[in-house]
Amino acid sequence: MSVSGIASDIVKTLKGLLPSDGTIGLHEPEFKGNERSYVNECIDTGWVSSVGKFVDRFESELADYTGARRAVAVVNGTSALHMALMLAGVRPSDEIIIPALTFVATANAVSYCGGVPHLADASEETLGIDPEKLGDYLKTITRVEGENCINRATGRRISAVVPMHTLGHPVDMDLLCDVAGRFNLAVVEDAAESLGSYYRGRHTGTIGLLGALSFNGNKIATTGGGGAILTNDDKLADMAKHLTTTARIKHSWTISHDAVGYNYRMPNINAALGCAQLERITDFVERKRALAARYAAAFEGIKGVRFFVEPSFARSNYWLNTLLLDEESAQFRDAVLEATNAAGIATRPLWTLINKLRMYEGSPSMGLSVASGLEAGAINLPSSAILGEDHVGT
Amino acid sequence: MSVSGIASDIVKTLKGLLPSDGTIGLHEPEFKGNERSYVNECIDTGWVSSVGKFVDRFESELADYTGARRAVAVVNGTSALHMALMLAGVRPSDEIIIPALTFVATANAVSYCGGVPHLADASEETLGIDPEKLGDYLKTITRVEGENCINRATGRRISAVVPMHTLGHPVDMDLLCDVAGRFNLAVVEDAAESLGSYYRGRHTGTIGLLGALSFNGNKIATTGGGGAILTNDDKLADMAKHLTTTARIKHSWTISHDAVGYNYRMPNINAALGCAQLERITDFVERKRALAARYAAAFEGIKGVRFFVEPSFARSNYWLNTLLLDEESAQFRDAVLEATNAAGIATRPLWTLINKLRMYEGSPSMGLSVASGLEAGAINLPSSAILGEDHVGT
Repeated sequence: MSVSGIASDIVKTLKGLLPSDGTIGLHEPEFKGNERSYVNECIDTGWVSSVGKFVDRFESELADYTGARRAVAVVNGTSALHMALMLAGVRPSDEIIIPALTFVATANAVSYCGGVPHLADASEETLGIDPEKLGDYLKTITRVEGENCINRATGRRISAVVPMHTLGHPVDMDLLCDVAGRFNLAVVEDAAESLGSYYRGRHTGTIGLLGALSFNGNKIATTGGGGAILTNDDKLADMAKHLTTTARIKHSWTISHDAVGYNYRMPNINAALGCAQLERITDFVERKRALAARYAAAFEGIKGVRFFVEPSFARSNYWLNTLLLDEESAQFRDAVLEATNAAGIATRPLWTLINKLRMYEGSPSMGLSVASGLEAGAINLPSSAILGEDHVGT
Repeated sequence: MSVSGIASDIVKTLKGLLPSDGTIGLHEPEFKGNERSYVNECIDTGWVSSVGKFVDRFESELADYTGARRAVAVVNGTSALHMALMLAGVRPSDEIIIPALTFVATANAVSYCGGVPHLADASEETLGIDPEKLGDYLKTITRVEGENCINRATGRRISAVVPMHTLGHPVDMDLLCDVAGRFNLAVVEDAAESLGSYYRGRHTGTIGLLGALSFNGNKIATTGGGGAILTNDDKLADMAKHLTTTARIKHSWTISHDAVGYNYRMPNINAALGCAQLERITDFVERKRALAARYAAAFEGIKGVRFFVEPSFARSNYWLNTLLLDEESAQFRDAVLEATNAAGIATRPLWTLINKLRMYEGSPSMGLSVASGLEAGAINLPSSAILGEDHVGT
């Protein structure tokens, strides 16, 4: 397989499937519903900020859609994850298991708590944490002291695990929760990319103790900037609301607070956008799945590359569609990225592994052979919902 | 002076000055300019999130308006202050001088850096930190070790001072900067409440090393939720931009980061609102100053109470207008709050002093006699710009 061979095969296949006019972005939002109407209502009524009906409505509709008992809207996915980790009991100097293959926010949220990311390898089947490999690893490196799981090498407590549902594909949560149970780890799901993705019929982010969603502009539904904490535990949800709204004590006029709180609440104008987006989420998921099916068919038989398909137990939102170059072809990854972007088709690699980032070098880690292979050979493809419409590219 | 006497005097005076229809809020935003147009442009173009022209424009116009060399838009005033403190070199366990009389965010931002708030008393003239009292106090309690100012009692470094321009009234910055210089303290201005306020002709937030603005819904100009970091130092501004946008290294497609960064960037849709608000800031300030002048005149001669007037060196935005009950009348504060709110006129006291909040009890502190007096006797009055229009209340 030559560089020009695989790159031109991929460009040709993508051109056959995608619209031919203009540049095709990686993931663009779509505002064809009530977005203008709801946002203008905020402006006309003056309720754009910390008070207003859209935040409550957005939280309630998110809970309905995901099946979580409660949802708390916040300013972005990073803040959702930060709060979820705090509420899960993460204490300074705890080690937290996160995937090596993830967006940096997963590791940063651990840092904000004073914790230390401890890196786990990925599964070929899900792109997320491999629970069986994690279980074997923890058995080797930890000891249990009372209710605590201690890293024997560092002496630090390992208190939580953060499965990230990579690119919208669910981790095998039954296996992961089993491992977490055996080692007394709280499960905090990083569901930033997986709104609309289900694990065995359960929405991602609702299976662990807490979950975090993102509504950044590149996500399947957006609030401009935004996130949400999901949980089935009322006490945790109440505490999430309290801590994300400066921990203010309710009173008609006295301004007092009972904890070091955060200014993480989602403004009403952003929630208004979110309410309109949620009304269309089912349609977004369907069209993105249709696009994925067309990618899968188009790349069938193309040598050196395969289209990543959701795990057998999952119904994924296919947030970012993904090509995997095989081991032999991975050397041409940058050539493929250059050729596709030069052709006006936005593509990108996955994130640099967390252990390769300067500030997380030397993080405790298991072997990362699968994550390294995925990092080397994966390419994300244009994934906007509009590309899944029937008439597009035909 | 009886409880009914002073409360009814104040209600009567306010009723004579404010509109008689409906409830009068404390501070309501006004969207009569290009707010709808700019926000709808975001929705129509799809640029609502981390990319888009309004963020750059908002930053550039903020710099123009305030005279700061650079402005970096962020998600709220708390995050602006957190970043400003980090950039000023605050390290874990440093003590940071903040006013005891401030909104809790000033103290929380110190906590996010791992620092310890060290509380300063207020000045009767400005409502903010009293620089002379601070200078005398620091002389007594600190020693200098090389470039560091050390609290002799705790052994901790005191590395910065955060003058908060209370309710829009500037601290005496020449005196404060002199004290900061003598004790090697970085000056980070908490200008959350003082957009449009000037100290001897210089905009608040541009005098110290860094300043923080807020655009929360209750501020003189709003972005729904938002804030900004001001500085005249290009390197600090570049670092602020980098750290508030996940510290990502610029590259066409590689996703890599070189520091523990934050997701603090202001979304484009919020910046769009801000651009429209900034177009009207001069008018907002003028009308708020007109309202303050009318309050001042109306309360002239009312026994037991005086209207707080800007310091002689300042031109204030009068963000929240303020009545001060004298020492003898302060006992009736809650009665006044009840009577005014019952009459449909929103009023509120100042914030509970930081040292009275559970999580900051035991913070190092100088004597707080002036701050305590202000806390006991101050009442904020309705302050929306619309109330300053000529026809209102006449």
